[in-house]
Amino acid sequence: MIIESYKDPSLKIFSLNSNKPLAEKIANVVGTQLGKSSVKQFSDGEIQINIEESIRGDHVYVIQSTNYPVNDHLLELLIMIDALKRASAKTINIVMPYYGYGRQDRTAKPREPITAKLVANLLQKAGATRMLMLDLHTVQLQGFFDIPVDNLFTMPLFAQHYQDCGLSGEDVVVVSPKNSGVGRARVLSEYLDATLAIVDQSIDEHGEKLGSVIGNIQGKTCIMVDDMINTGETLASAATILMDNGAKAVYACASHGLFSNGATRILKEAPIKKICVTDSIDFTGKEQLVNLEVITSSELIGKGIKGIHENKPLSPLFKL
Amino acid sequence: MIIESYKDPSLKIFSLNSNKPLAEKIANVVGTQLGKSSVKQFSDGEIQINIEESIRGDHVYVIQSTNYPVNDHLLELLIMIDALKRASAKTINIVMPYYGYGRQDRTAKPREPITAKLVANLLQKAGATRMLMLDLHTVQLQGFFDIPVDNLFTMPLFAQHYQDCGLSGEDVVVVSPKNSGVGRARVLSEYLDATLAIVDQSIDEHGEKLGSVIGNIQGKTCIMVDDMINTGETLASAATILMDNGAKAVYACASHGLFSNGATRILKEAPIKKICVTDSIDFTGKEQLVNLEVITSSELIGKGIKGIHENKPLSPLFKL
Amino acid sequence: MIIESYKDPSLKIFSLNSNKPLAEKIANVVGTQLGKSSVKQFSDGEIQINIEESIRGDHVYVIQSTNYPVNDHLLELLIMIDALKRASAKTINIVMPYYGYGRQDRTAKPREPITAKLVANLLQKAGATRMLMLDLHTVQLQGFFDIPVDNLFTMPLFAQHYQDCGLSGEDVVVVSPKNSGVGRARVLSEYLDATLAIVDQSIDEHGEKLGSVIGNIQGKTCIMVDDMINTGETLASAATILMDNGAKAVYACASHGLFSNGATRILKEAPIKKICVTDSIDFTGKEQLVNLEVITSSELIGKGIKGIHENKPLSPLFKL
Amino acid sequence: MIIESYKDPSLKIFSLNSNKPLAEKIANVVGTQLGKSSVKQFSDGEIQINIEESIRGDHVYVIQSTNYPVNDHLLELLIMIDALKRASAKTINIVMPYYGYGRQDRTAKPREPITAKLVANLLQKAGATRMLMLDLHTVQLQGFFDIPVDNLFTMPLFAQHYQDCGLSGEDVVVVSPKNSGVGRARVLSEYLDATLAIVDQSIDEHGEKLGSVIGNIQGKTCIMVDDMINTGETLASAATILMDNGAKAVYACASHGLFSNGATRILKEAPIKKICVTDSIDFTGKEQLVNLEVITSSELIGKGIKGIHENKPLSPLFKL
Amino acid sequence: MIIESYKDPSLKIFSLNSNKPLAEKIANVVGTQLGKSSVKQFSDGEIQINIEESIRGDHVYVIQSTNYPVNDHLLELLIMIDALKRASAKTINIVMPYYGYGRQDRTAKPREPITAKLVANLLQKAGATRMLMLDLHTVQLQGFFDIPVDNLFTMPLFAQHYQDCGLSGEDVVVVSPKNSGVGRARVLSEYLDATLAIVDQSIDEHGEKLGSVIGNIQGKTCIMVDDMINTGETLASAATILMDNGAKAVYACASHGLFSNGATRILKEAPIKKICVTDSIDFTGKEQLVNLEVITSSELIGKGIKGIHENKPLSPLFKL
Amino acid sequence: MIIESYKDPSLKIFSLNSNKPLAEKIANVVGTQLGKSSVKQFSDGEIQINIEESIRGDHVYVIQSTNYPVNDHLLELLIMIDALKRASAKTINIVMPYYGYGRQDRTAKPREPITAKLVANLLQKAGATRMLMLDLHTVQLQGFFDIPVDNLFTMPLFAQHYQDCGLSGEDVVVVSPKNSGVGRARVLSEYLDATLAIVDQSIDEHGEKLGSVIGNIQGKTCIMVDDMINTGETLASAATILMDNGAKAVYACASHGLFSNGATRILKEAPIKKICVTDSIDFTGKEQLVNLEVITSSELIGKGIKGIHENKPLSPLFKL
Repeated sequence: MIIESYKDPSLKIFSLNSNKPLAEKIANVVGTQLGKSSVKQFSDGEIQINIEESIRGDHVYVIQSTNYPVNDHLLELLIMIDALKRASAKTINIVMPYYGYGRQDRTAKPREPITAKLVANLLQKAGATRMLMLDLHTVQLQGFFDIPVDNLFTMPLFAQHYQDCGLSGEDVVVVSPKNSGVGRARVLSEYLDATLAIVDQSIDEHGEKLGSVIGNIQGKTCIMVDDMINTGETLASAATILMDNGAKAVYACASHGLFSNGATRILKEAPIKKICVTDSIDFTGKEQLVNLEVITSSELIGKGIKGIHENKPLSPLFKL
Repeated sequence: MIIESYKDPSLKIFSLNSNKPLAEKIANVVGTQLGKSSVKQFSDGEIQINIEESIRGDHVYVIQSTNYPVNDHLLELLIMIDALKRASAKTINIVMPYYGYGRQDRTAKPREPITAKLVANLLQKAGATRMLMLDLHTVQLQGFFDIPVDNLFTMPLFAQHYQDCGLSGEDVVVVSPKNSGVGRARVLSEYLDATLAIVDQSIDEHGEKLGSVIGNIQGKTCIMVDDMINTGETLASAATILMDNGAKAVYACASHGLFSNGATRILKEAPIKKICVTDSIDFTGKEQLVNLEVITSSELIGKGIKGIHENKPLSPLFKL
Repeated sequence: MIIESYKDPSLKIFSLNSNKPLAEKIANVVGTQLGKSSVKQFSDGEIQINIEESIRGDHVYVIQSTNYPVNDHLLELLIMIDALKRASAKTINIVMPYYGYGRQDRTAKPREPITAKLVANLLQKAGATRMLMLDLHTVQLQGFFDIPVDNLFTMPLFAQHYQDCGLSGEDVVVVSPKNSGVGRARVLSEYLDATLAIVDQSIDEHGEKLGSVIGNIQGKTCIMVDDMINTGETLASAATILMDNGAKAVYACASHGLFSNGATRILKEAPIKKICVTDSIDFTGKEQLVNLEVITSSELIGKGIKGIHENKPLSPLFKL
Repeated sequence: MIIESYKDPSLKIFSLNSNKPLAEKIANVVGTQLGKSSVKQFSDGEIQINIEESIRGDHVYVIQSTNYPVNDHLLELLIMIDALKRASAKTINIVMPYYGYGRQDRTAKPREPITAKLVANLLQKAGATRMLMLDLHTVQLQGFFDIPVDNLFTMPLFAQHYQDCGLSGEDVVVVSPKNSGVGRARVLSEYLDATLAIVDQSIDEHGEKLGSVIGNIQGKTCIMVDDMINTGETLASAATILMDNGAKAVYACASHGLFSNGATRILKEAPIKKICVTDSIDFTGKEQLVNLEVITSSELIGKGIKGIHENKPLSPLFKL
Repeated sequence: MIIESYKDPSLKIFSLNSNKPLAEKIANVVGTQLGKSSVKQFSDGEIQINIEESIRGDHVYVIQSTNYPVNDHLLELLIMIDALKRASAKTINIVMPYYGYGRQDRTAKPREPITAKLVANLLQKAGATRMLMLDLHTVQLQGFFDIPVDNLFTMPLFAQHYQDCGLSGEDVVVVSPKNSGVGRARVLSEYLDATLAIVDQSIDEHGEKLGSVIGNIQGKTCIMVDDMINTGETLASAATILMDNGAKAVYACASHGLFSNGATRILKEAPIKKICVTDSIDFTGKEQLVNLEVITSSELIGKGIKGIHENKPLSPLFKL
Repeated sequence: MIIESYKDPSLKIFSLNSNKPLAEKIANVVGTQLGKSSVKQFSDGEIQINIEESIRGDHVYVIQSTNYPVNDHLLELLIMIDALKRASAKTINIVMPYYGYGRQDRTAKPREPITAKLVANLLQKAGATRMLMLDLHTVQLQGFFDIPVDNLFTMPLFAQHYQDCGLSGEDVVVVSPKNSGVGRARVLSEYLDATLAIVDQSIDEHGEKLGSVIGNIQGKTCIMVDDMINTGETLASAATILMDNGAKAVYACASHGLFSNGATRILKEAPIKKICVTDSIDFTGKEQLVNLEVITSSELIGKGIKGIHENKPLSPLFKL
């Protein structure tokens, strides 16, 4: 049950279609109700948005993750921003728990786009005045914006979770399942007083998968950490390699649970004891994994919104 | 068979996914081949674009209609523009035979977006340097852009078509099937030396459809003209009203054949003798209407591209 | 007599030279006095503006129609905006009852400017942060701006006026005096429970004026509606055609009474019983028409300003 | 007689209405003819521009001074720029022999606009890509633009003129008629090997005009130099003061001859032997001064245009 | 001792490294303390800034002169602005008592930059929302900005100073030490009821310095006024020329005391009785001149900040 | 000796002050001479730039690394860009072998600037139209720009170097000296068919340095790779840790040799056999390390410039 208790009516939270359950929880944390709006798609696929209450002069927070179907979710958001701007919202704050296209952040090959920057440009051009995000794929994405960006870290949430489970100290190794993104594993290992290892995965000239473990995991409990789980293949093969190299048990966590086609099947068969993700992406209706644990990010995001609205520093949110 | 004969290699035409058959025809008219590129969608819906030949310093024309699925087609285009810009294309010319979201061109109700303007802003922000379009929903859309816009008219194509069929002169009435967009009917009536009528359709307080004919159609052949056929309902009911009011026969034409869900069924049952559209939208694979005639816009667009590239005036294209 | 009663001194209304009588009335509706400023023209035609009271941090509303002499009125406005911006006004809200150059909203012929968009760009570049306008020539003009635009409709004012005169119901036909702008006639016909007709005017190859009535007006009272009366020729010839086709009587209304050279003479001789316009344009000093009725838009605009300043929805203003 | 001999057809020169005689001469210097265009004003004062030949891909030079009526001339120019931009001109080069509003270049009193900067912003926003100007009121005006600005100096023209008249050396004093703009007098004095003096004019508390000469002019021929002659009052009173203080004779020159209301009368009565101006402003039809000498700037501007078009340095133009 | 008494905690003043003593005084005038921040330079010269208290939603005033080392001071400022913008400051007000690169305000020779405009562009691009400056080199610099600029005049301070010293009336001549910048001398002469003269300095073809006095200074006390003292050469040679031409005594004042290398030595040897500057530049640690008098600008600037923050007009500050 | 042989005179290369030796070599590779320009610093630290040949309509390449003193080098560059833009350069291409402030690419702590993005914004605002860079600190920096960015990789140069030295295959381990930047080591290890290891360095709560090796280096030759060598501490301590853990020998390479204060002393004492850097930074005059090998990047950059100018793909430059 939501109790509307937030004192300042100029703070309005709206949810679009990507993750209404999380939006409800965030509104609850803030102490308000979601604003009234409707989004419909015409027979030709065009999105029509209707904001059903006045937001003139208000500070509006729009909650939208841009996971699958990413293009529809992104257009929903851009159209909503245009509507809010023309309807005289005072500030338009985008709360984007998951930032789609975040991995297209550089031109890896000739003539590639930098779609993550394109998206940043589109959001700003439409009229966004601030971003609140959760564990960006790379921290440099903040610099793709010229408006204020707050990037909330999920590592303290996972650290708390594993400490509560008794998984810390020298019997534990935090593992990066691939040779990029080691920084994330480094941070969690410090929280848990654990050591660090890397699974170095590659594909040889015959198309065969190769994998070796850099660092000592013999007889230890491994916690793999990544920013997202998409097809699950990286984690699944890393888990197998870890077990083959003498790990005692393997756990995995990631901020964003995309769980694309086949991910649940792949992960079911992998030697992973438990998988932990946040609710940044709504996977309601998808076939569930038995060993999935979900940590809510609503407390973190809700406090972030309040901090922004009340001009209080967000730095306490970054502490364990 | 395509014969590459166009003399200036700095003119490059690329097609995205919405209407490859038309793109092929346009390239043929220009006398060149489509540039090599690939567009793929990842399992999480994100689009990845690969331009497979150098376009440094070239004048690139990208052909893309933004019909269903409009958001995917629009993102494809925006990402392509970003890639071209970063890969040092000299100019980025968007050839958009059908401009999706064109009807959301004003705030009809409070707090509505103007999505047609948003789309114009996004295209320009991404890096488009020119637009070439076909029979925009309203001509004012040109003013949504600050880059040059050429809006090619299809009316001369339809006028030629109906003259070839012997449909002109005083036995013919050009009819606007609704009370907006009368201008389009007016132009065709002048081409065909025909008179003008309007079907005034509305819905009364009991939700019942009302329709009356403004103008004289008794015993005449009616040619209804609209800019697009979406669900087909407007044309179907207008045709019935026209026949009920004594029309001899009813024809219909529209620049853009969207044919959304159920349109073919509705139009099959309507008393329309023949329906004529251009190929601005690719409806390959959709259930075909027996009485559908398709006029290609490739000649018009191809000449437009050549005119732009060679700095020749496009005005001759607007003549019959 | 003006009584200064508006509670919030940060709301300041200034009038430039185009329509001071209306500005006084609007200030009266809001409950405040016009801010002190002077505009003078040097011997070489250059305009100098002097804002004679501090507006630091204030929400300023500048009232200016851009009718004849449109260029002087437009420059006055642009210079005023520059002065306000540099003098640290918090917001600069342009109240433009009549938007000059609004008809140049598309490139009808090759190499034409889109002056209506140019004006929108100039206003925004100078520093305008919001527009409040009255019955724009086409609603798409809203999309020429990226700042919030409120376009107040005058149709409810005219509907009320004709109802008060007993002109409604089945004896009345609302007539569009030309084949564009039918939408405006459609709206008024709904308000008045009246039917709809169009006068289709054109010029044949011998330069002779042609005109026919589309729709039934036999024995009915016709109310012609347009957005503006400039030379009066369109209305005058339409009135004659209507009477020739059996109309019982002809009335005419338009939001903006430009009354250019010769308009009053032409309209005097036309078979129009009464002509009704708003005071969006100041025609003080012009030779008056005996049958002219003027409805003030000050109530509508004044309430609009208050609504904007107090962050209240403007939608109630759109109701009868 | 104009002989079209310029080799590159992509160079197009258009003239608007402010100074067609000068434009003709400039075209002649360049060796081409003026482009075909028409400018008309509607009965409501709105300007309509028609460019009557294709300029797709061309380098267009538009010649327009913004003297009286400054607002009409400025709007003409802005609308022309918009038309050229939308019609795909490759570059839009504004040749503005006289820059109106140039004196409003700072906020002298609280809450004043900086109209000279506003005009610069408007020109750039409309789409100008380069400016070519003649003796700007203050050289800092160049910095109001972010596009390239070439400011041609007229001092070499006047220096040549006075040398041809035998007015140089120690019998001559170059005089600034007011205590600002001394730099201009300094430059001319160097060209003519003459000394320098200033007429310090002011108004005392009783509104009486005061004037004193700073520097030695006793028995010398004085050449007053200013950037513009508007009402002529400054020059007339300075001349009287100079004669009263023992000058042998007084000459005057200025780049821009505005000659506002009454100027010719005032100057006729002033003890000035000869007045010399350039043709930057067209004063055809104004009552002529008998002692007026006009130097054409067409050679200077025409060479400037050719230099720009052929990517040659303009610096030789700045030499005597 | 600083007493924190200013009522509104959303006003925050920060000082960077160029002039902390002045910043302390300004904070004292306002009645607050300087915000906590640190600036350090890495071994490779890169500047790192740390803002050590929350400024979310605050109105921040950053005090920084851009004197020597100008590039370090400018980058410090730009980086600080970026940090403030990203940390969600509500407004970012730059208080720049001395504006470096102000003399590069035009292209004097071909292919010169206009660095003063470049600096204005950089500050605005970084995110500055307002400028507060002191006696700009030329007043046209205001027009280099599109954000509000307040340019405080120091002349009333100097006028008060010399009146207090009894230096006014007909025995005094205010002298411009060079033939530009006469306006500044003109203003001071009016304040002091004094006459005006100019020292016309130049260099002949043999590289020899020439100098003559324009105006009468015989037996009078001269007060030279300039906007800045850099190497001191202009003032030193002007003083010698004045004494050689019969001046009774020579004083000098300037808003900005840069005192570059050797300036103190040059000025010590010059026949100047007293030199007066403001504290816009911190010359702590430099070898002091015995005859230097320093007027603080802190009162003026502090009142300016309060006026801006409280939306009160600054015009009273411009009065004596 | 430089032989001017490049065919197209519209390609102009200018060097600023940071790395003239490299600029000379690059010009040599291209087959042209450096353009004539001078940069001087006034006594107050202000930079004045003089471009001594016409560049109207030319494609200008400016070579400048922004190493120590970074702020002076950056301002030199920004001022040069402003001068080029105003002098009508057609394109302004910045060749920046070392991108200063590149490590400040995210807000690691609250209220930190993203200076790397600020620098990107300043360069674009000044007028840069393209960037050519060498091994950026993180590849995401490309996305900080909206103009085309070519980021040349140095890894092929280093790979070639070590292959020539016989350092490849299974006896070699490529080592990342810290736990970020593992990607760079990964690429080199693939080129050299070598394995991968990481030195995990940290500081414990007592301020003591800790270091462990992740991966197997026992008895192997280690090649450490980083993007830059600043103080040399990271490499020196990593080398010691590697030797302590049984490495046979340790080599080190990095693209950018900053060699800040004390770096040569620290590196001299470290157990590193040879250190290899490119000439992206000019360390002429610094105390040299005996075991330093310098690879020139001039061939790579010169070919890049030619490729860009001739619209040829740069991808071949990325191959070994």
